[in-house]
Amino acid sequence: MSRTFNSEGEHEAFVTEQALMPQGFRAGTTRFEFVPAEATKPAKMKLTLLVVDEPTPNFAAVFTRNAVAGAPVLIGRARLAEERLGAIVINNKISNVGTATGVADAEAVCAAVGQAVGIPTRAVLPASTGVIGWRLPSEAIVQALPAAVSNLSAASLAPAAHAIMTTDLYPKARTQTVGKGRITAIAKGAGMIEPNMATMLGFVLTDLDVPRAALRQMLARVVDRTFNAISIDSDTSTSDMVVALSSGKVPCTDLAAFEEALLLVCAQLSEDVVRNGEGVHHVMRVAVKGLPEVAWAKAIGKAIVNSPLVKTAICGNDPNVGRVMAAIGKTIGVAGWPLDPRQARVAIGGHTVFANGAFTLSPAIDEQVRGHLEQTELYRSKGTAEGMFYAPLKYPPHDRCVEIEVAWPGSEDEVVIVGADLSHEYVTENADYRS
Amino acid sequence: MSRTFNSEGEHEAFVTEQALMPQGFRAGTTRFEFVPAEATKPAKMKLTLLVVDEPTPNFAAVFTRNAVAGAPVLIGRARLAEERLGAIVINNKISNVGTATGVADAEAVCAAVGQAVGIPTRAVLPASTGVIGWRLPSEAIVQALPAAVSNLSAASLAPAAHAIMTTDLYPKARTQTVGKGRITAIAKGAGMIEPNMATMLGFVLTDLDVPRAALRQMLARVVDRTFNAISIDSDTSTSDMVVALSSGKVPCTDLAAFEEALLLVCAQLSEDVVRNGEGVHHVMRVAVKGLPEVAWAKAIGKAIVNSPLVKTAICGNDPNVGRVMAAIGKTIGVAGWPLDPRQARVAIGGHTVFANGAFTLSPAIDEQVRGHLEQTELYRSKGTAEGMFYAPLKYPPHDRCVEIEVAWPGSEDEVVIVGADLSHEYVTENADYRS
Repeated sequence: MSRTFNSEGEHEAFVTEQALMPQGFRAGTTRFEFVPAEATKPAKMKLTLLVVDEPTPNFAAVFTRNAVAGAPVLIGRARLAEERLGAIVINNKISNVGTATGVADAEAVCAAVGQAVGIPTRAVLPASTGVIGWRLPSEAIVQALPAAVSNLSAASLAPAAHAIMTTDLYPKARTQTVGKGRITAIAKGAGMIEPNMATMLGFVLTDLDVPRAALRQMLARVVDRTFNAISIDSDTSTSDMVVALSSGKVPCTDLAAFEEALLLVCAQLSEDVVRNGEGVHHVMRVAVKGLPEVAWAKAIGKAIVNSPLVKTAICGNDPNVGRVMAAIGKTIGVAGWPLDPRQARVAIGGHTVFANGAFTLSPAIDEQVRGHLEQTELYRSKGTAEGMFYAPLKYPPHDRCVEIEVAWPGSEDEVVIVGADLSHEYVTENADYRS
Repeated sequence: MSRTFNSEGEHEAFVTEQALMPQGFRAGTTRFEFVPAEATKPAKMKLTLLVVDEPTPNFAAVFTRNAVAGAPVLIGRARLAEERLGAIVINNKISNVGTATGVADAEAVCAAVGQAVGIPTRAVLPASTGVIGWRLPSEAIVQALPAAVSNLSAASLAPAAHAIMTTDLYPKARTQTVGKGRITAIAKGAGMIEPNMATMLGFVLTDLDVPRAALRQMLARVVDRTFNAISIDSDTSTSDMVVALSSGKVPCTDLAAFEEALLLVCAQLSEDVVRNGEGVHHVMRVAVKGLPEVAWAKAIGKAIVNSPLVKTAICGNDPNVGRVMAAIGKTIGVAGWPLDPRQARVAIGGHTVFANGAFTLSPAIDEQVRGHLEQTELYRSKGTAEGMFYAPLKYPPHDRCVEIEVAWPGSEDEVVIVGADLSHEYVTENADYRS
């Protein structure tokens, strides 16, 4: 069943409905100006605080696998060993990566947050997104902190979903109930959302009382199938993180139901992130079936959504199915797996385009696939007189996806990878400005 | 020393000078119209014949690693076991991949070529580039064959360099002498040069008498360092091949000198291919040094040239060096190598941007790197009123590269990867048309 939005207001109402705050949390935000050490012009930064009423032992986090990791990632990995977590402090504009004072700068911010909300520094987790290589302006952040503390509120996560945005087109929040409890998650980014700005940040709050060990195992499993199964442009950021916090206000009697809801929230939110990726005209959902190894299925799915030639063909509503087969073939061939691509059946939008070792191309199939691509398009490009391209919408008009199925004979178990096309808007966003 | 071209004529003269035919070969071309089985409109195809005066045992070939390989690749692999090779028949427009009759169609063409030039079918190697999934029009090719045979000539490889082009902007040929002998090579493509058209094809002819086993070993080594070290858009074609043929007319007294010349020809030609890649504004040459494993260096170099964010930054002359470090970090992190990215020194255009574990950013460095990018730019984008982007040149104005160096302490041995940026022209070429 497809959901459509006809205006920014309609989508905003949906986000508000999804941003319901679980019990036991408060969020506060503020915005301030500062002059970066590496620049001459002032910049604007948004600061967001997420606070648990009582510091909790039940928290989990997964971090980027990028070996050039930001200071917040280095600190966050260490925080996993702490007894309790009480707050998360999030800034945009500067990602705090690769500077000599990065860890000290972030710890200074954590200390100020700890003091302001009455918890130890080590119970505060920092998260940053923005320019790589610039110094975090910890003094300016500390000065701005009281404003964020003073508006801490348990009313809604919607203000936080807004404040963590950089040039995301719209805020992203998803919620599910489990019995009398709730899981709500917000996220920003994917790919480079603003010139020089990177990072996917995800924050999952729940009032369900899930023990630390179980929460960590479930978050790892769920992220692997959701946030780690999306790709806008194949560029893993230096600062990605997904954090989950339980306030413990509501007993959790069914861990399996909790994990199922967590999976749904994260699957929806990660697809939202792709849909709002820069320059995205189509979201692609690739289901790979019948393979003996999950890793093979993941690699094939990722190769399809990351192929520049598949991406540009989809962008142009062009049923250029040869490019999909070429992406499958290059992955298998380079890896050297004992797997015959001629055994695969490939369908787009439910229309078979390759089966029994050969393409099934015809003018009729061509029209059907083209129709599916047109139906799943979010918008059509329209350049300015200066040759720049901007997304004409601040909301997703629908939640349809280009459905690609690659199935070998055998099991119906599937691995799903979600990705996006490649458009002029992506190039404008990342090449037509000077950072 | 930088070479510049001020007109298409100047570049054409250079190609003619580079396309000198080695002794013992002839080339012939023709062009004809046909109606593809899968379409209603007629299409034009070019046919090229390369013939050795005497079928030779001394031939070598390397093929795509894509597991969805075209019929010419399947046949070519089998031909390696044949005693002698006497001719190569090359067509554009249809790559002969993934159809039920592909091998039979290509063999029918080989049989006709063999009959026309008086050699066995098995001494003819087919090569195709073009649409994936369409049937090779073998009857139309056989009909057109006499025209190509009738104009076989030992005068120059320039007509063949032209005829194997699809929408390459200009022909590509390179030559070197070794003693009294000569190596000349021509190539087409890289990335998708025309909507739906794929494939890199390279043909190396030499009159130097190099024994089969030595030629095969040398070609494999050289291709690994040249054609396999370039990337326009990371999409390995289903039909790539590089073939080398020796006519044996000139004794080869120094195999090492031959290999050195072969390396130079292939390095220059593969860089030509990148420079003529679709929408390329900058050629990037990434040198990775000081690593214990060649595979690590290759992967890091490829990750940099294939990162959409690095590509778009370079396209915009944007010294966004954080993206280069992020590409290095994601590669190391995902692979899990015991290698610390903070130990690397990174320089662009000779200007150090990362050293001693931190970025060395300043307005002055920023200006220097920006200047290097501007100096290595081939042309600036200019869209049409309809928002389409076309390369304004039919020749490369210069042979300069964006020079990126990533060096760990230790050996000065380097692995060089050559790649290109990502521009509006690439998107126009691959998304703005319907195939």
